[in-house]
Amino acid sequence: MSKKKNKPQRPKARRPRGFEDKPADIIRAERRLIDAAFSVYDKHGFEPLQTPAFEYADALGKFLPDEDRPNTGVFALRDDDEQWMSLRYDLTAPLARFVAENFDGLAKPYRRYQAGSVFRNEKPGPGRFREFVQCDADSVGAPGAAADAEMCLLAADVMEAVGLKSGQYQVRVNNRKLLDGILENTGVPNTEEGALQRLQVLRAIDKLDRLGVSGVEALLGEGREDDSGDYTKGANLSPAAIKAVLGFTTASEGGRGATITNLEKLVGTSERGQAGCQELKDIDQILQAVGCDSDRVAFDTSIVRGLGYYTGPVFEVELLADIKDKKGRPVRIGSIGGGGRYDDLVSRFRGQLVPATGFSFGVSRLLSALERLEALETVSRPPVFISVFDKALLGEYFKMAEDIRHAGIRAEVYVGTGNVTKQMKYADRRGIQFAIIMGEDEMNAGQVTIKDLWLGAEKAKAIQSNEEWKSARPAQETISRDNLLDYLKDKLV
Amino acid sequence: MSKKKNKPQRPKARRPRGFEDKPADIIRAERRLIDAAFSVYDKHGFEPLQTPAFEYADALGKFLPDEDRPNTGVFALRDDDEQWMSLRYDLTAPLARFVAENFDGLAKPYRRYQAGSVFRNEKPGPGRFREFVQCDADSVGAPGAAADAEMCLLAADVMEAVGLKSGQYQVRVNNRKLLDGILENTGVPNTEEGALQRLQVLRAIDKLDRLGVSGVEALLGEGREDDSGDYTKGANLSPAAIKAVLGFTTASEGGRGATITNLEKLVGTSERGQAGCQELKDIDQILQAVGCDSDRVAFDTSIVRGLGYYTGPVFEVELLADIKDKKGRPVRIGSIGGGGRYDDLVSRFRGQLVPATGFSFGVSRLLSALERLEALETVSRPPVFISVFDKALLGEYFKMAEDIRHAGIRAEVYVGTGNVTKQMKYADRRGIQFAIIMGEDEMNAGQVTIKDLWLGAEKAKAIQSNEEWKSARPAQETISRDNLLDYLKDKLV
Repeated sequence: MSKKKNKPQRPKARRPRGFEDKPADIIRAERRLIDAAFSVYDKHGFEPLQTPAFEYADALGKFLPDEDRPNTGVFALRDDDEQWMSLRYDLTAPLARFVAENFDGLAKPYRRYQAGSVFRNEKPGPGRFREFVQCDADSVGAPGAAADAEMCLLAADVMEAVGLKSGQYQVRVNNRKLLDGILENTGVPNTEEGALQRLQVLRAIDKLDRLGVSGVEALLGEGREDDSGDYTKGANLSPAAIKAVLGFTTASEGGRGATITNLEKLVGTSERGQAGCQELKDIDQILQAVGCDSDRVAFDTSIVRGLGYYTGPVFEVELLADIKDKKGRPVRIGSIGGGGRYDDLVSRFRGQLVPATGFSFGVSRLLSALERLEALETVSRPPVFISVFDKALLGEYFKMAEDIRHAGIRAEVYVGTGNVTKQMKYADRRGIQFAIIMGEDEMNAGQVTIKDLWLGAEKAKAIQSNEEWKSARPAQETISRDNLLDYLKDKLV
Repeated sequence: MSKKKNKPQRPKARRPRGFEDKPADIIRAERRLIDAAFSVYDKHGFEPLQTPAFEYADALGKFLPDEDRPNTGVFALRDDDEQWMSLRYDLTAPLARFVAENFDGLAKPYRRYQAGSVFRNEKPGPGRFREFVQCDADSVGAPGAAADAEMCLLAADVMEAVGLKSGQYQVRVNNRKLLDGILENTGVPNTEEGALQRLQVLRAIDKLDRLGVSGVEALLGEGREDDSGDYTKGANLSPAAIKAVLGFTTASEGGRGATITNLEKLVGTSERGQAGCQELKDIDQILQAVGCDSDRVAFDTSIVRGLGYYTGPVFEVELLADIKDKKGRPVRIGSIGGGGRYDDLVSRFRGQLVPATGFSFGVSRLLSALERLEALETVSRPPVFISVFDKALLGEYFKMAEDIRHAGIRAEVYVGTGNVTKQMKYADRRGIQFAIIMGEDEMNAGQVTIKDLWLGAEKAKAIQSNEEWKSARPAQETISRDNLLDYLKDKLV
């Protein structure tokens, strides 16, 4: 509005650092993943829940805001009434708040699923965004292994619902109580006193891939000097304990039944360890009953991630490539989801332990993994494009588009400005295959011309001159308008 | 963990003021509305877009943060790098940013749809939340009335896709250029100079329902004193102009064609007015061609809301009850969505006008309106409930649940603790109809017992004593396990 005197200061159009605009194909594919997961959860009798993006900072936990720099890891702001609110960083903390707030009104076990954006106020990186979508299912109020077995089955069903086949994924189950029990059985008390040693043992096991058995053995014992001369203090376990821990890491190399037998020996008289074994047995019983074999859900004592956080069974979903490694095992692509039992979730609010178990996956992460496996079906075909050859016929074009849509096919009329050449450029950029052109003469003759732009682009490579192209018109045909729907259905449905 | 000495300070579990936890039925119904709308947009060749929850405050517009109180109307916070970010308050401002940022890479017209949470930092009220879901479709880069006609058709198609029938809703179209033109034709210049008068006229028309024709007539002229003695200054229009404006408000009482004829007289020689009429004609031509009658899309010159904001055609979707008013017209429930043409959306960033037109609805608002009309189908049946009569049979119960799911029916096994009585209470609270009970004897006999809890609750009302109930067992039957799936399919599918 203002005249030339002051050139107006215009804001720069840029999206905030670490956030993304999602393109259409990704959105469609992610929506399909979420729909598939939801349908599995629904079938199992879970109910959807949606909590707000914000929670009060104190309810969210892990975070107490200070005046100067409240945003450590979370996005926080102060409400009108001076209370700090934070955007949720996962879907579990809001679930805990919801369950605590509505405890008496909820039929328990309360089993819910939820998908939604979570926010992390962290340094963004390639493929690491500050807003991303998680999809969770949790059982609250179910202490037994049946709820954990259900989580494993859900995880496996979700993987198959999104298009993976048996052998392309594996749900892997470990149990924190097992390692606790094995250590207890070899003299590391299952109390605060043994906490540091347990942590050191976890860290040592986590390095098995990198350091090999002898390196881990050293870390479980006195300690280890690495190539650079740095010395890592060891967990100082007894030789028997070291042997037991190393035995633990390989205890699951057989099937589920063999694993349980191995573990029963290792945990010995530890009550906690025996409880862990019993949980695996209970899970195995249910998996067997429904015909779920080790290809789908396996016990895997080498899983360490989450053992410090969860209080019982721990799950991880591994995506497996079709190629095998030297030992004939499928190559790991990586973890695409996980979960476990966390019996102290609601205790922050209520001071009482409420048993809970859950499974979660990152939607974008799962999608990229599926893309790597080429396990994605094409989600959407481009619409049929109706060119505006003659503006006076706009109504006819809209009518034609409606007819095509009624046949179940996407269709659009060009609503921009520009001649047919420009319209065809638009159609090309939109990735459109079929473009329909109808002028007045054609309309009066009851005909339409259909261009196959994909075929046209292919044929164009082989054709030398413009004239040759014009005389051949290889990817274009004129048909009776009455046959249009059959023609398109034949090509597209 | 801590001993009695210091009672731990526990956070109170409460959701933030003005935010909501959505219950399962609402979530399912809203998801269905969004799916239905998306499917319409998809069919018309629109593509989905997802932008982040955050935008830079300067890009979002309408809002320049000041140091003390940045949150006026929006939720804002300062990023690590000191830039202000705001949560989006609608989906249009982020679209403008996206289009401006990717202008050269987008095939235009760029037609996208999007649904997502928007945030308003306002005082919450009953049914007014600070986070709610909007669903938008917009065409950017299409200057002609064809794009506006498409928006009207989309709006009507969405209403029918969510379950409304013809006659239960109406898309109503006005055009800002008409009133501008009528005023210009009667001496109010279509420039800055006439801006105040145009605003006064809009405000006066908006009071038609409340003040009647004579009240509005006064407000268009010298002014009006209300019952309390307060005086509102009038727009000071000439008598001819007043007559024309009043004529405008009733110009659409006939059909679309009659409306155009009336309006052509009223706008006289005003170019802007004539342009408005031509736009209505172009829209009407397309609506007629696709067989879209006035019941679905009408011209309505009494629509004022949005006339100040939009730059051309304005749309509003009215929900109509089946009951009629005294004049035989369907009673208005209210507006459930709207939109229009806004040709200056992207100009904030690029300094050039980019034509755009769009349609938007609030998902919760539409849902409540559908509930009032009882136009909602039941979205989800409760699952079949399998009681854990004997823990040793857990595997059998899970297998049974799997079988039921494979028949397309939701099913769950009880994964909590508690005896059968407690389990039935849980099932009751979950609203479950069918509960299955199978003990070892029944299993060995190949039988299951099915309780119909809904029927049971009904019959219980008529039965006097506990003994009578026990001997009658009116809502329970024992059937062969082989017949279970057929039994359930018969009742539920």
